[in-house]
Amino acid sequence: MEHELKEFIKKCDKAIKQEDFDTLKNYYTDDAILVVKPDMIARGKEEIKQAFIKITKYFNNSLVPAQGEMIILKAGDTALVISQTLLEADKNETEYSMDRRSTYVFKKNSQGEWLCAIDNSYGTDLINM
Amino acid sequence: MEHELKEFIKKCDKAIKQEDFDTLKNYYTDDAILVVKPDMIARGKEEIKQAFIKITKYFNNSLVPAQGEMIILKAGDTALVISQTLLEADKNETEYSMDRRSTYVFKKNSQGEWLCAIDNSYGTDLINM
Repeated sequence: MEHELKEFIKKCDKAIKQEDFDTLKNYYTDDAILVVKPDMIARGKEEIKQAFIKITKYFNNSLVPAQGEMIILKAGDTALVISQTLLEADKNETEYSMDRRSTYVFKKNSQGEWLCAIDNSYGTDLINM
Repeated sequence: MEHELKEFIKKCDKAIKQEDFDTLKNYYTDDAILVVKPDMIARGKEEIKQAFIKITKYFNNSLVPAQGEMIILKAGDTALVISQTLLEADKNETEYSMDRRSTYVFKKNSQGEWLCAIDNSYGTDLINM
């Protein structure tokens, strides 16, 4: 299971790197949310796709996300993943860290596939932002 | 909705303070997990009840949890709550902080009630523990 979710997250990161946002958006549930910035949330596959297009453009189409240490807390068909997320790009973000402690919530659908329901790369730092 | 989840978390904290663990355990899903310590996880209502009995005993039956600033990220019937959790007791915990940034995952059941599925008061600090 742990391996399954790690592989899934790798696929998401690969889709971002390759800017394959049609594949990426289908890794999210229909009502998924993505915390784009502390005060900006994208809701649903289409808004999430559009947000990723803007995010990668902002980073000069050079964004490569990778995960470092990862902790998977699984309860039935729901999982909270706490991950060290490293963002690499040829443009350095100054306002927000490129080395984050993310919180992702995944849900297993009726076909037994994990999908992302809540994507918050700011983790608990959101409280202080 | 936000109000609903905040009220629910207040009820959980009240049950802990009153050591009413039979009420408390029913605020969790059947397959819920509680991160007792970074390397110790309680699974299911009964283990969670037993864990809380031990935790309150450890704190000389004086444990009072309270939430400070709280951010609620809701995606359909799933919610990630990021919360400043303040633990008060007449015995001070030295190994782990009493002022935490918690991550809680809640799920709405078919009766429309929120239940806790993943209870991790250590938040993203788990990565470094």
